[in-house]
Amino acid sequence: MARLVECVPNFSEGKNKTTIETIHTLIKKHTDVTLLDFTPDADHNRTDVTIIGSPEAVKAAALDIAVKCVELIDMNTHKGEHPRMGAIDVVPFIPISEVSMSDCVQLANDFAKEFSDKTHVPCYLYEEAATREDRRNLADVRRGQYEGLKKEIGTNPDKVPDYGPNKIHPTAGATAVGARFFLIAFNVNLGTTNLAIAEDIAKVVRHSSGGYRYVKAKGFEIKERGIVQVSMNLTNYQKTSLFRVFETIKNEAERYGVPVIGSEIVGLVPVEALVHISNHYLRLEKFTDQQVLEKKLLEISK
Amino acid sequence: MARLVECVPNFSEGKNKTTIETIHTLIKKHTDVTLLDFTPDADHNRTDVTIIGSPEAVKAAALDIAVKCVELIDMNTHKGEHPRMGAIDVVPFIPISEVSMSDCVQLANDFAKEFSDKTHVPCYLYEEAATREDRRNLADVRRGQYEGLKKEIGTNPDKVPDYGPNKIHPTAGATAVGARFFLIAFNVNLGTTNLAIAEDIAKVVRHSSGGYRYVKAKGFEIKERGIVQVSMNLTNYQKTSLFRVFETIKNEAERYGVPVIGSEIVGLVPVEALVHISNHYLRLEKFTDQQVLEKKLLEISK
Repeated sequence: MARLVECVPNFSEGKNKTTIETIHTLIKKHTDVTLLDFTPDADHNRTDVTIIGSPEAVKAAALDIAVKCVELIDMNTHKGEHPRMGAIDVVPFIPISEVSMSDCVQLANDFAKEFSDKTHVPCYLYEEAATREDRRNLADVRRGQYEGLKKEIGTNPDKVPDYGPNKIHPTAGATAVGARFFLIAFNVNLGTTNLAIAEDIAKVVRHSSGGYRYVKAKGFEIKERGIVQVSMNLTNYQKTSLFRVFETIKNEAERYGVPVIGSEIVGLVPVEALVHISNHYLRLEKFTDQQVLEKKLLEISK
Repeated sequence: MARLVECVPNFSEGKNKTTIETIHTLIKKHTDVTLLDFTPDADHNRTDVTIIGSPEAVKAAALDIAVKCVELIDMNTHKGEHPRMGAIDVVPFIPISEVSMSDCVQLANDFAKEFSDKTHVPCYLYEEAATREDRRNLADVRRGQYEGLKKEIGTNPDKVPDYGPNKIHPTAGATAVGARFFLIAFNVNLGTTNLAIAEDIAKVVRHSSGGYRYVKAKGFEIKERGIVQVSMNLTNYQKTSLFRVFETIKNEAERYGVPVIGSEIVGLVPVEALVHISNHYLRLEKFTDQQVLEKKLLEISK
């Protein structure tokens, strides 16, 4: 397989059909990247884009998208439920194959430099690309959102951007540029209506309250099914495996006499995560993703 | 993903470097098929070839290989440990994606007709392509091998071929042409030196003695590790899942107080088999191979 990077630019428009269509058309012109997903969300007034390709091709496409967002989107009139601070709000780079995390950190730096040089939009590096510990978490970087940052930038020394001018862009705000691991959205469903149990178990598995290093978790009620759910993001499936988190939740649920009635993987998952699951439960010796037919075919096809 | 068929021609030469190299070079010229594997085996005096591609491309490449084997290999001087009855011994077609088993049965018929028309080698259809129940099993078709068939063909009415003349080819013998499912070689290792236990458990899981429909199994001793092994071929992983066979073996081993210390998948496995394993153990709801990143990338790349 060739060198592959994924990039998931999020831009702050989920309603205006002309803007959305313009950006969609722009991406389609980059025939050297693969558009895996393009989901405008009207409630959040935000669109998630997922592209994949060589580091160079992905960077060029992301840059094109970002510059167009600066042209078309005005944060002064933007409203949406999702936290956001810029027209092109976040641009994370994710290593997929034959690319290291430090390659993606470099890519984030290159992108942020070129983008801010071109548009004068201030950029903050986050997660693995963060230059300060208090910028690692995207939620911290984006705290106060566009409106808050507008007041703080230029005066608060903690808000000096990593690239670009130390002042807000008058219409496009600011952008968070990052490097991170492939994220797996994994939910476990519990056969009870008692939300407190899902919340307790979420606390047990999540990093912030003493659980696994690469798990973010919350308890949710799914009223239409009469059940509750431990809803998670696994931020590094190589170091915190799905099966281990699942087994811990199953064990915790038992203590309440509550059954695990099912689980869900939302969106995509790398084949390597399934290999880890198979290795564990079937006690496989020396089985790797190189033995998966589709992975082998993909390597040959590139 | 495009329409994909796998073909695993086995030819009766594993030593003569010139012959092997000539056939290897020939395959390489078929740039529209992917050569996944090419393994000459000197002990068996036999070479396994694995190619993958569109049904049309795979048939053309297999035909080219087969015709060249007829030219180059003389069964009258062939010796090897593996059962065989022809220069090009077996040609199975295996559905991989967007191709049905009945497509592969048709492909086997088309191949056998064209090949025997061209070379006058008699062809026997086997497994899913079999025209009689007693030709379903390749071992039955090949019983007596080249030397035995030479005596029986033309006189024994049960040996009338499906295609080609009712007489042996003077140098190339006969060929078995089939359609079958993707085969997974799966072994489970038991922490005991007692071979009888592996043999007993093999009997429990294999079809021929009352076990799972799509399992062939034998007990083996692995002296260098001081363990025994239940060695299996799973001939239809969609209907007899790896995890179910594994759990049955684990349960049976328990009855002897013997631990399952590991397992092995030899060679390739389709991602769908790993999805089945994950679905079972993580109790996943509605998770399919369409959510596996590499599968999605492969579909887009074709």
